[in-house]
Amino acid sequence: MNAQVSEGKWRRLRSLADGEGRFKMMAIDQRGSLSNAIAKTTNRSADQVSGEELADAKEAITRVLAPYATAVLTDPIYGYPHSFRSIPQGIGLLLAHEETGYERAGPTGRERKTNLIEGWSVKKAQHAGADAVKLLLYYHPDSSEDVRRHQQDLVQRLGEECEQACMPFLLELVSYALEEGGTSTDEFARKKPDLVIRSAHEFSDPKYKVDVLKLEFPANLKSTREFCGGTFDGEERQAVYQLSDVREFCCQLNEAAGMPWVILSAGVGIEEFLIQVELATEAGASGFLCGRAIWKDAVPFYPDFATMENWLRSEGAYNFLRANAYAQRAVPWFEHRRCKEGVLAATSTARG
Amino acid sequence: MNAQVSEGKWRRLRSLADGEGRFKMMAIDQRGSLSNAIAKTTNRSADQVSGEELADAKEAITRVLAPYATAVLTDPIYGYPHSFRSIPQGIGLLLAHEETGYERAGPTGRERKTNLIEGWSVKKAQHAGADAVKLLLYYHPDSSEDVRRHQQDLVQRLGEECEQACMPFLLELVSYALEEGGTSTDEFARKKPDLVIRSAHEFSDPKYKVDVLKLEFPANLKSTREFCGGTFDGEERQAVYQLSDVREFCCQLNEAAGMPWVILSAGVGIEEFLIQVELATEAGASGFLCGRAIWKDAVPFYPDFATMENWLRSEGAYNFLRANAYAQRAVPWFEHRRCKEGVLAATSTARG
Repeated sequence: MNAQVSEGKWRRLRSLADGEGRFKMMAIDQRGSLSNAIAKTTNRSADQVSGEELADAKEAITRVLAPYATAVLTDPIYGYPHSFRSIPQGIGLLLAHEETGYERAGPTGRERKTNLIEGWSVKKAQHAGADAVKLLLYYHPDSSEDVRRHQQDLVQRLGEECEQACMPFLLELVSYALEEGGTSTDEFARKKPDLVIRSAHEFSDPKYKVDVLKLEFPANLKSTREFCGGTFDGEERQAVYQLSDVREFCCQLNEAAGMPWVILSAGVGIEEFLIQVELATEAGASGFLCGRAIWKDAVPFYPDFATMENWLRSEGAYNFLRANAYAQRAVPWFEHRRCKEGVLAATSTARG
Repeated sequence: MNAQVSEGKWRRLRSLADGEGRFKMMAIDQRGSLSNAIAKTTNRSADQVSGEELADAKEAITRVLAPYATAVLTDPIYGYPHSFRSIPQGIGLLLAHEETGYERAGPTGRERKTNLIEGWSVKKAQHAGADAVKLLLYYHPDSSEDVRRHQQDLVQRLGEECEQACMPFLLELVSYALEEGGTSTDEFARKKPDLVIRSAHEFSDPKYKVDVLKLEFPANLKSTREFCGGTFDGEERQAVYQLSDVREFCCQLNEAAGMPWVILSAGVGIEEFLIQVELATEAGASGFLCGRAIWKDAVPFYPDFATMENWLRSEGAYNFLRANAYAQRAVPWFEHRRCKEGVLAATSTARG
């Protein structure tokens, strides 16, 4: 008779989206990649960038751009404690749960294990006021069994912990190459659709209790016949597929996900990202969760905060508004087939 | 280094108020008094009113009026499970923690002990998505030690539980008469300022870890020289004080409270309530948490839901908008002297 789990998840999930159920979320939870960017622009190594510098940069970006977001994803160490007053009222909060980076693993040392932030928990995230927990998981469906099992177990345990606390669980999947040469080869571009789709399929299994997937674009747009001439970065590539194939990959990804999903930017440029948002939402995505594509060009001004903020207020805001406009065609999360069956499929006490 | 308690309480507390920190909150957590009102209008006894009827009436009132509120207080049994979709996005949620009514106690049987909802907890409220826990406490500073201790211990335990969960704790204090004749006598009107002020003072002790007090108006306006001629209900009374005294009681109450406080309506008519809001906010209150004064005149139309909703959309909404206008002069909660000292005085890890 009393209030149930389902209402809590529903209320929190709703708080991440706009009034029509579309996610237009901002990521500022970067730690490693932001340290690297600050180090580069100040001619230092990443370990010379202090936690305070990281916190200050995050706060500035959050303060200027959060008003354009429906929710902000930040980290509980350098981000939230220093930025919580800079997130306007009515904007949702996601807190990152993973330790930045990954642990090298597997027989070749090229596989990746994710670890959680030490001493952090879903309970602490909830107490701190989070509306959702986010886990970034590096995943390769053909990695060694030990690594695959480690990654799957991690998700399952966290999914269960979130479920107990009625906390929405957003899982971000990032692929990587098992081969030498990394993710920038034509070979990887060719494999990427399959990797992204199979990974999404794995974690759509209800046993993981994921509520929203944050997914990579399932192809490299720079390797399409239409854009391989250097459209986005001036670099010519071999065409490994064409846009009509990519549309099909997006549809397959939407099928595989089986739950509301959003597209991530992985640091591509804003022009490329906007096309990704268009194609992903056309296929069924419920919006985006985007960081660097929107704000990365502010970082080279560091530590000149006045110029950084000036850039964020003009170019950064314009980037965000364009992404929001592209996401207008996203599928409201509550209209996803999985959510129509109950409040949330992951919630056993779901109400119709 | 990680995110702290204080940020969670701060974020939740903010979600209850408008952008300027003023509480314009609606109460629809009534159980006993609403059952009685429904019983009366349908010529039945309260025990003949079913839980479903109560839930339906609450849902209708919530659906129409919640859009005018900065937050909605409801109960976790008949209210929230049936109304959670009727509270618009961006509007805060308080859940009642006490069993409706009270247990008769003390040597005369006229004293009152409060009990909590069986099987409910702060953890459950948090999981369900509440932004604050509300406890209604009947309190008389001159009740027997057993009863006083019981009530104080209850508050202290719940305050601790809320603190552990970073959940804002709103304590509602309601006075009552130890003497025969109840609260409608001139004698009680005379005593009321002292009772309300001393009770607020008691629970402003940091050991109770209360974040916001929900207080009675510290006088009976119907017993003032200015209004004793039957202004509000047509009934003449003896004048036991005048408006200038009442203003002074309000200032004393503001001093005694020592933390942000809001005024409750206790079912008085809307005209009287508006004057109470004016006097309370002038003295330092941060707004109101009002139920029946706004919506009670809809209940006599029950079970004609169309007419009820029609009344709520016109008269009810007008009442709410007037109360909101009167609360425009309220003191933003974060400007209260206690909150300026830290994020929240009750929070040991408060940040400046």
